[in-house]
Amino acid sequence: MRFQNPTFLGAVASTLLLSTSFVQGVCLHDHRRTLQAGPGSVPISNFSYIGVTGPLGWAGLSPANVKCSTANVQSPINIEHDVVPFSKTHPKLSIPNVRSAEFENLGSTVEVVINGTTIFEGKTYSLKQYHFHTPTEHLIDAQFYPMEVHFVNIASDGSILVLAALFELSLTGTNANLLVPLSAPLHAITEPGSSTTTGPLSFSDITNFFNTVPLFKYTGSLTTPPCTDGVVFLVADTFLPISPKAFLEFKSVLKFNARYVQNAPGEENLIEVAAGQLPK
Amino acid sequence: MRFQNPTFLGAVASTLLLSTSFVQGVCLHDHRRTLQAGPGSVPISNFSYIGVTGPLGWAGLSPANVKCSTANVQSPINIEHDVVPFSKTHPKLSIPNVRSAEFENLGSTVEVVINGTTIFEGKTYSLKQYHFHTPTEHLIDAQFYPMEVHFVNIASDGSILVLAALFELSLTGTNANLLVPLSAPLHAITEPGSSTTTGPLSFSDITNFFNTVPLFKYTGSLTTPPCTDGVVFLVADTFLPISPKAFLEFKSVLKFNARYVQNAPGEENLIEVAAGQLPK
Repeated sequence: MRFQNPTFLGAVASTLLLSTSFVQGVCLHDHRRTLQAGPGSVPISNFSYIGVTGPLGWAGLSPANVKCSTANVQSPINIEHDVVPFSKTHPKLSIPNVRSAEFENLGSTVEVVINGTTIFEGKTYSLKQYHFHTPTEHLIDAQFYPMEVHFVNIASDGSILVLAALFELSLTGTNANLLVPLSAPLHAITEPGSSTTTGPLSFSDITNFFNTVPLFKYTGSLTTPPCTDGVVFLVADTFLPISPKAFLEFKSVLKFNARYVQNAPGEENLIEVAAGQLPK
Repeated sequence: MRFQNPTFLGAVASTLLLSTSFVQGVCLHDHRRTLQAGPGSVPISNFSYIGVTGPLGWAGLSPANVKCSTANVQSPINIEHDVVPFSKTHPKLSIPNVRSAEFENLGSTVEVVINGTTIFEGKTYSLKQYHFHTPTEHLIDAQFYPMEVHFVNIASDGSILVLAALFELSLTGTNANLLVPLSAPLHAITEPGSSTTTGPLSFSDITNFFNTVPLFKYTGSLTTPPCTDGVVFLVADTFLPISPKAFLEFKSVLKFNARYVQNAPGEENLIEVAAGQLPK
């Protein structure tokens, strides 16, 4: 796993497009909702990462979540270099730069609502949002990292493509450009259910990143309820840098929002494994 | 939660006592074994943190591990300030400084084998070892931290007392004195099953720490197989500092070794909760 060259992440900003005044957000947890753009309140997720509303209790929150405990293709996973192949082709992301975007604290994550298009393996997806997990949901060769970002794309046939990148702590204090404009507005959404608007966002660096770095490819699931399977994951094998200061800022808001790693794709769901080991 | 004052962790070193040439180590996972002191190999734990040998599969590794999936008092937990009380008294630790100690990579953790005595609530415990988890096993008010240390004490009647402290990243690069002498030998035990000997270790800072800072107290379990319950945990409500560099060093060896947070003490084991939600 290589470290992202900071110069590759050099500042870029050019065309700014006005965001639409009404946006439809699609959470990773696949709940559609309509939001009025601008600061305000957003619905809080009904799931958590602790206790009976946490990952071991997600199936109990709704019959719709049954796959969280029964599907044999789930995410996140431990990505072993010797096992998970690289994608033979790169996705082609197009994300218009924006003057501002909605930035929401859903309780389960913080999410930036954007519009874009991703073309991958001949299929066109709409890019809906990106959000963060801390620590990482995916492990790489059994090791965890401080934070992970997911760019969530949905095609017209409902199929889902997630572009994921893991952050590693930068000892020189470097931050990926993706994080820099989120630092100030993050302080405005420390409370679950709150939202704000960002300043200008440019996406040239991150689109160039996903368009060029080696990407692991596997079919998994949403990492949150309803744990829909059949989700294609492209996970970068190059880290994005996060400074210790920025990591502490994100962690103080996200606190802990990583699902435990699942069994390898095709293997029995770990909840069924655990249930089968209970005394008769 | 307060941050440990670095001056409180100022260097101390005085009397050095020779470690015994044969030591009996007691892992947190309660397997007794006899080790010859000095560099060499140590048995590797049969459990992991991933897949069917991970926390959801621990009960399947041995009938002796049944409590991992059935006991209603388990560790780690999410420690909420409003819920978990502070201990009314402090433990009294006595750890002789040593010229060197065994430092082992068990696959599941890295562990320093020492001898000491802890007196708490009128009972005398033998201090056997301390070891590390990354990220933290306990959450504090739902937030995780980069690393946790456990000092494991056992009384003659078999009762277990664990003194735990959470580390937070230091933006000034400070490390708790406990970590400093482990940095060099850590590089000698990057492979599971390897061991080495440390240089001189002094414990005045860490004994003073546990003897004075506020300590949450609750009854939980071993956080590793066989998940023995009835373990008294004293968890410091003051962070120890770890530099980003030291964190990366420990993480590169430990990779990921934190059990998911359990249901609150007295509540149903989360594996039984999950099993009860499976389709009939």
